[in-house]
Amino acid sequence: MLAIKNLAAEVNSVDKLYQYKKIAAYNGNALSVVQVADRTLDFHVHEHSDELFCVLEGSFEIETDDGLQRLNAGELTVVPRGTRHRPVVGALCKFLMVELDGTLNKSNSGDQYEEA
Amino acid sequence: MLAIKNLAAEVNSVDKLYQYKKIAAYNGNALSVVQVADRTLDFHVHEHSDELFCVLEGSFEIETDDGLQRLNAGELTVVPRGTRHRPVVGALCKFLMVELDGTLNKSNSGDQYEEA
Repeated sequence: MLAIKNLAAEVNSVDKLYQYKKIAAYNGNALSVVQVADRTLDFHVHEHSDELFCVLEGSFEIETDDGLQRLNAGELTVVPRGTRHRPVVGALCKFLMVELDGTLNKSNSGDQYEEA
Repeated sequence: MLAIKNLAAEVNSVDKLYQYKKIAAYNGNALSVVQVADRTLDFHVHEHSDELFCVLEGSFEIETDDGLQRLNAGELTVVPRGTRHRPVVGALCKFLMVELDGTLNKSNSGDQYEEA
């Protein structure tokens, strides 16, 4: 049987902020959901993977060398590999991320990366 | 600047059924949105790519050798490469699909595949 995942239920099942929960694998990439609030990471670069963000609830900003851009619920963007970026999160935001397996680690995820 | 895409606006901008609109590229994969109604494709297999479906509005069923499974709005699933499957769509459904670039063609998309 196929594993069917409800995005809202999955992200709401995570009981801590900054805890990534991997919900699916796709072509060697990990789909993870996370709840974040009041967190600005250091600028960083993923050399080997694009990074997809899709907001499920709330909104946050992504900062690149081009400035800040806000991503609202129901919107997605892809940060191309090699692009210096950082998420800037104020009020609680729930989102889906997709990266090549092994891309996220403690140094680029606020020292909180842990597969749920 | 990053390209930010509103999923509802993108799928609603497609003015014909069965017309795939590519909205983003991610790690060599294409993200496409489509509106489908009253359409059952022939069973087929993608040998070289998993296929991700995420329902934006409505619902449809995916049939595999394990039977039919319904995917509702806000839900996603990944059909692993090599898995015989077909979508079974009744009432209008709007969804996002992700496949390795080049996976979709006229023979596995109801003879309607065309990049918008």
